[in-house]
Amino acid sequence: MAVAIPDSYRDLFTKRAFVYLSTVMPDGSPQVTPVWCDLDGNHIRINTAKGRVKDRNMRRNRKVALTVADPDNPYRYLAVRGEVAEITEQGADAHIDLLAKKYLGQEKYPYRKPGEVRVIYKIRPEKISTMG
Amino acid sequence: MAVAIPDSYRDLFTKRAFVYLSTVMPDGSPQVTPVWCDLDGNHIRINTAKGRVKDRNMRRNRKVALTVADPDNPYRYLAVRGEVAEITEQGADAHIDLLAKKYLGQEKYPYRKPGEVRVIYKIRPEKISTMG
Repeated sequence: MAVAIPDSYRDLFTKRAFVYLSTVMPDGSPQVTPVWCDLDGNHIRINTAKGRVKDRNMRRNRKVALTVADPDNPYRYLAVRGEVAEITEQGADAHIDLLAKKYLGQEKYPYRKPGEVRVIYKIRPEKISTMG
Repeated sequence: MAVAIPDSYRDLFTKRAFVYLSTVMPDGSPQVTPVWCDLDGNHIRINTAKGRVKDRNMRRNRKVALTVADPDNPYRYLAVRGEVAEITEQGADAHIDLLAKKYLGQEKYPYRKPGEVRVIYKIRPEKISTMG
């Protein structure tokens, strides 16, 4: 069941805060990396390139967890457990440019590689805890 | 097999950098929370209270992952997958005071609760990737 992101923590997603995203490896062990993020309604959106470890993990196992902390106060954070509700390439190039604008102040994502296919993952929160 | 933490990233553990630690829930899904940390040789040490979710998870399943980023540059980070090599209460009260000194500049951990049992987890890196 989806749970709502508290209004009092939605500001975290307007800051240049990284999501520390955890996915599950084929052997059941966890993996965690920092990624850019934004909100799409009550979904947390992240964007990566097809074929990367976290892409393969999320296609195999949609259960994920993430924490996003206030860049101005690491003791204020939102911790989410949830599920990847949607995986799509549609709009993913525009979305990574949007994130480049948010995080780098640049109109275009500057690290695109030839042949890279961008993918959006929309994460539905199922359990939320907050601190600070 | 253990792998060595690169010398060029050991400075992260002298800064007030949080470890984003991922553990595995009973149903196989991941969980991630920020925690204080330090190094003990090539092991990453964290400290929590007995009975908490991550304590129960690490006793059940020793596979963990963590990322620690440079507080001065979030694009510089160390990502580790590994295993809890040791869980001990011995020295755990002194260790949480040491972490309070590092992170808060206080001689004594100020958030201790009555009856709380502190525990040290020593994490052996088995796979390391770096960025920045």
